[in-house]
Amino acid sequence: MSFHEIERRVDVETAQKLIYSSIRKVITEEVDVVDSLSRVVAKEIRSESDVPHFDRSAMDGFAVIAGDTFGCSQQKPAKLEITGASNVGRVPRATIASGKAVEVATGSQIPKGADAVVKIENTDRTGNQLKVFLPVTPGDNISRVGEDLKKGEVIIDAGQFIRPQDISLLLACGVLRIQVAKKPTVGVIATGNELIEPQKTQIPGKVFNINTHSLSAYVTLYGGLPIDLGIVGDSFEELKKVLESALKYDLVVFSGSTSVGKKDMLPEVVSSVGRLVFRGVSMRPGNPTTVGLVNGKHVFLLPGFPVAAMITFETFVGPAIRKMMNAKCLDPRSEITALLGKRVPSTLGRRDYVRVRLQLDEEGQTVAYPVRSSGSGIISSMTKADGLIEISEDLEGLEKGSKVIVKLFPR
Amino acid sequence: MSFHEIERRVDVETAQKLIYSSIRKVITEEVDVVDSLSRVVAKEIRSESDVPHFDRSAMDGFAVIAGDTFGCSQQKPAKLEITGASNVGRVPRATIASGKAVEVATGSQIPKGADAVVKIENTDRTGNQLKVFLPVTPGDNISRVGEDLKKGEVIIDAGQFIRPQDISLLLACGVLRIQVAKKPTVGVIATGNELIEPQKTQIPGKVFNINTHSLSAYVTLYGGLPIDLGIVGDSFEELKKVLESALKYDLVVFSGSTSVGKKDMLPEVVSSVGRLVFRGVSMRPGNPTTVGLVNGKHVFLLPGFPVAAMITFETFVGPAIRKMMNAKCLDPRSEITALLGKRVPSTLGRRDYVRVRLQLDEEGQTVAYPVRSSGSGIISSMTKADGLIEISEDLEGLEKGSKVIVKLFPR
Repeated sequence: MSFHEIERRVDVETAQKLIYSSIRKVITEEVDVVDSLSRVVAKEIRSESDVPHFDRSAMDGFAVIAGDTFGCSQQKPAKLEITGASNVGRVPRATIASGKAVEVATGSQIPKGADAVVKIENTDRTGNQLKVFLPVTPGDNISRVGEDLKKGEVIIDAGQFIRPQDISLLLACGVLRIQVAKKPTVGVIATGNELIEPQKTQIPGKVFNINTHSLSAYVTLYGGLPIDLGIVGDSFEELKKVLESALKYDLVVFSGSTSVGKKDMLPEVVSSVGRLVFRGVSMRPGNPTTVGLVNGKHVFLLPGFPVAAMITFETFVGPAIRKMMNAKCLDPRSEITALLGKRVPSTLGRRDYVRVRLQLDEEGQTVAYPVRSSGSGIISSMTKADGLIEISEDLEGLEKGSKVIVKLFPR
Repeated sequence: MSFHEIERRVDVETAQKLIYSSIRKVITEEVDVVDSLSRVVAKEIRSESDVPHFDRSAMDGFAVIAGDTFGCSQQKPAKLEITGASNVGRVPRATIASGKAVEVATGSQIPKGADAVVKIENTDRTGNQLKVFLPVTPGDNISRVGEDLKKGEVIIDAGQFIRPQDISLLLACGVLRIQVAKKPTVGVIATGNELIEPQKTQIPGKVFNINTHSLSAYVTLYGGLPIDLGIVGDSFEELKKVLESALKYDLVVFSGSTSVGKKDMLPEVVSSVGRLVFRGVSMRPGNPTTVGLVNGKHVFLLPGFPVAAMITFETFVGPAIRKMMNAKCLDPRSEITALLGKRVPSTLGRRDYVRVRLQLDEEGQTVAYPVRSSGSGIISSMTKADGLIEISEDLEGLEKGSKVIVKLFPR
């Protein structure tokens, strides 16, 4: 298919759908649960055992038959004989019959015959004689077998990121290794004759390459493995060469060289070896964003301006990385609602991404103020902001006081 | 100071204050900016140069003298002569006088004499003849020297975590290496005769050690370096030995062995070599939480129940790790407000931590439902929840419909 057949410009939602629908899932690998923090679970995991796997005491006190305590009170304590202790970590030898009690600690196995635990603070002990001042009912202060988890129960769904509490739960039921998605490898390339690697001193006419570094950081944040392939000049042959060698990775991300001034070179390079999925997105910043498919792999052409590169990464590339891992949640950013502190104009038919800073007003309400900026060349507009708001395509702006959703930058 | 002198029980806020006020900051180290993601900046960083460091075009088009375009229109274009081009990445040789124009691309250096750029879409070119259909004013479509950052300007404050956009900004102005806080090392120990390392099959009476693994994951999430020191039995001498050897780390965290049943062994161990800062916190779960200081290092004694261990970690240990790094933000959790879906009782004088699950109601409001659980033994209550709410010490519970703040678990 030739390049000129595809001049398809799309809106943000269509762009995302086109990307997601053509995503190839990465393969999975087995890892130790103790090393699985933040990995994405490949398939649902079931409990290997009941948790707890024995009836255990939830309190320090005495295992008893609840019936023996019925009707007791401070004035008229139930009197029981202590026949032994059930030590934590041991299987108790003592059993319980009516009129008997066994000392237990939190976590002790409940001896046979007992059906409740009286708390130590509601008892008085003298040698083997126990007074109980408060009645218990069967089951009181006992954690029953399977109360937390039943053997075979689904404990973690496919597509979930592993959190510390998931590590707890997996280990508690004897799951030691799990299948997770491999981290997608992402080749990141900056293009432009004006680019040089950052150094202490500026060089007249030249601009530091920052995109491969910031985008690599984003790749890490979204769960992928970045490979920084450095700078390539605006040469068709060189761009084609680096693209072909980058296809050994799961995704390829270019930044720069997509504006009119660069004469469409990079989209032509992509269509010379594959096809373009779309060309240009109705958004600001990010308007020239283009995506191609080469040998089933996505090639993202992001704008060169750092702010536009970052925002389009979070809109398209980050979610694509997560989709490749089959993650349920494609966007890691937290959202909060706020009131807009100032009118923001926008253009019908285009989605605007506005950097905002949050402040609490006198009534304790969160107010979002647009960060003054003159376009996507101003990197400090991203560092001074707390997050982004999106103004949808069907609006000509948002009035002061509008309720907005702010996608927060990670803290 | 003997152990018995200190039987100080405190509330959550006092506990945090006591911990923070005795924190020793970790030392700093220099790292490459490109490897600094999520590190904490040790001291404020200033720009090494103006950004941009030359006046550059923000558009594809032509650099002109704005005055030459005044009054022009579609019907009556201004007519200029193109004298050359300013290529991206080169210092332009062309200069501009009245009646002249120089071709520029986005990012091109503005030639001497020009004070504005007309966009290519508002022009028509024939050979060296240029027609301009829309007037510009001085400064239009030019990014001025220092517009983003001025040399010497503070760009990142001390105590901030490095985000991808901070990497962008630092590199853009030539900052290549920065001072960051060293990651605090945290020795993590589980105590209890009942504990064994997790395995496929449960052993009668025994319980799997999960706390060193889940707490190590939390240490990583909060920015520290965990060292899993495994299980130690309930023996005074063994506990003392492991504590003394763990003092080579910046922090020490024990879990278990703090309940009444364990006969105060661990607090006694700590006070035999140092002192207790407080003993017990009015909270649930987490009531036995105790903190000691040995050789200026904090020793945290967390409860053994996994849920209590995790919640007290996030309340005390995680913030302490961040405080050691001098981080501004001690709690990485995002907060949202929600309506409580069900009445939750609590006890006056104690702070309750309630696990909640979030749901949207028909009106689109976020509702927080307490996760059914029977205490801190139920790990699944943490995995089924989306976050925690806190019920303050001066309340006897929260009514259905109350506005609550939910601290979200990371996604």
